[in-house]
Amino acid sequence: MITDFSQRLIVQEVSPRDGLQIEPTWVETADKIALINQLSLAGFSRIEAGSFVSPKAIPALRDGDEVFRSIARQPGVTYVALIPNLRGAQRAIEAGADELNLVMSASQTHNLANMRMRCEQSLAAFADVAALASGTSLSLNGSIATTFGCPFEGRIDEDRVLQIVDAYLALGMHGVTLADTTGMANPRQVFALVQRVLSRVPASALTLHFHNTRGLGLSNVLAAYEAGARRFDASLGGLGGCPFAPGASGNICTEDLVNLCDEMGIETGIDLPLLLRLSRGLPALLGHEMPGQVAKAGRNCDLHPAPENPPG
Amino acid sequence: MITDFSQRLIVQEVSPRDGLQIEPTWVETADKIALINQLSLAGFSRIEAGSFVSPKAIPALRDGDEVFRSIARQPGVTYVALIPNLRGAQRAIEAGADELNLVMSASQTHNLANMRMRCEQSLAAFADVAALASGTSLSLNGSIATTFGCPFEGRIDEDRVLQIVDAYLALGMHGVTLADTTGMANPRQVFALVQRVLSRVPASALTLHFHNTRGLGLSNVLAAYEAGARRFDASLGGLGGCPFAPGASGNICTEDLVNLCDEMGIETGIDLPLLLRLSRGLPALLGHEMPGQVAKAGRNCDLHPAPENPPG
Repeated sequence: MITDFSQRLIVQEVSPRDGLQIEPTWVETADKIALINQLSLAGFSRIEAGSFVSPKAIPALRDGDEVFRSIARQPGVTYVALIPNLRGAQRAIEAGADELNLVMSASQTHNLANMRMRCEQSLAAFADVAALASGTSLSLNGSIATTFGCPFEGRIDEDRVLQIVDAYLALGMHGVTLADTTGMANPRQVFALVQRVLSRVPASALTLHFHNTRGLGLSNVLAAYEAGARRFDASLGGLGGCPFAPGASGNICTEDLVNLCDEMGIETGIDLPLLLRLSRGLPALLGHEMPGQVAKAGRNCDLHPAPENPPG
Repeated sequence: MITDFSQRLIVQEVSPRDGLQIEPTWVETADKIALINQLSLAGFSRIEAGSFVSPKAIPALRDGDEVFRSIARQPGVTYVALIPNLRGAQRAIEAGADELNLVMSASQTHNLANMRMRCEQSLAAFADVAALASGTSLSLNGSIATTFGCPFEGRIDEDRVLQIVDAYLALGMHGVTLADTTGMANPRQVFALVQRVLSRVPASALTLHFHNTRGLGLSNVLAAYEAGARRFDASLGGLGGCPFAPGASGNICTEDLVNLCDEMGIETGIDLPLLLRLSRGLPALLGHEMPGQVAKAGRNCDLHPAPENPPG
């Protein structure tokens, strides 16, 4: 284990997008905006606030235009939109997104299932988006879904991932995200791949996106941090599931990650008490419990009074 | 991160004791025996099968005597009983326990609340148990509850823990367990303390007992493994809660730990498919979902068929 934990860990909030996208309960546009406005005060530098995909594919996020137009933007916060193609990019730009997050799967089968096109078609569409963004202040981030494993194909070869990283860089992407879409990564694998990717991409441009589907999300964060990664996606309350693992948890939980960092002395700049208040409001908004742990257990420093009469 | 994962990780099953002890649903003695008999076939070298505490304090485990007398013992498996005092030790010995696990809290306040005595009184009682066990084949293990933090007192000083380790060794204990009773440990703290304890206790005699209350259980296992620890308690399904964190998960989940090891190439000798079958039977036995993740998500190698018609 490394002994130097002085490098800041940057937490990027994705609950408004990756968290809400598979929720069966419709969240009112005003509630989405209120959530993003609150999250904007918590110290995040980047919030993925919505997506511009087909409203038939993801009805839960069909109000992305209005959300982006209505949020109270805070200085220093980059508001990101996930987009699948040129049409989505145009909508996101019109709605005022600061950054476009383009996603393609490392797995051909997963890309066909998820994006309904082959990887080569995704890359061609990204080239169109890059041309559209060229000369503007828009930032482009390329996400690689199923980086560490695919529910259809299994383990993904490291070289395949590195080829996609190279393709993204050649397209002029400013950042790259390695996404463990269905929670198949393990810390040893993460450490090895992150080391290789960091020989191509600076740490300031690399994001790791883990899901906690098999309970390994925070362990994978630590492995990536040990390998030199500094930017991590996380979702308030651990919101966001996986259609292939009903009942299993989704994205790593923002407040659990911040609590881990606080306890280990890794600086994040995030306001944990505010996150806990927001997270504890999610069950009322969505009608179910959240997988996040610290919102239930409290922080270590939230001590209990000693029992006067020991239970018996 | 270390690069050598060739050292076996020994998983010790505690669900029949630490898992069941706070369950509100009464589990029939025959069901307890059946569970332990199945667990005995999964490859564990050590199973904590029950406790001999006051039936008023822990009614869920009041049938420890019958359980220990009736289980189908497998060669190579050590059947452990948790005991608080000499009376419990006598009962456990009569019932045929192979090993006595004595527990005291590092925190004076927690020991008073949990054991209703001061730490000095616990140590005096342990001396009586050691005298009773002397010259027999009984193995003695000393557990230190709240090693990494106490819900009443907060962080526990490392030197305090080391003093208790020394006291346990002076009493002739064969093994020592560092227990994170309410899930307050973090990986950096674990790595540091385990390194210090391993200068006094060989890895073969040191067990780490983590709870996942704040989502850090498996991260703490990896930190301890990196520091040289090899023996870990875990509970099927993640069974076992914490009275101070309603809704938060309890012990680290055995099958999630074994899955982590399988994925990382760390040998455990445990039959994961059998564990998954047993874990998936727990909700019917106990009337609620379990916090374990892999039982819901499946293993990485349990691939899904590619959708013929992508969802729309």
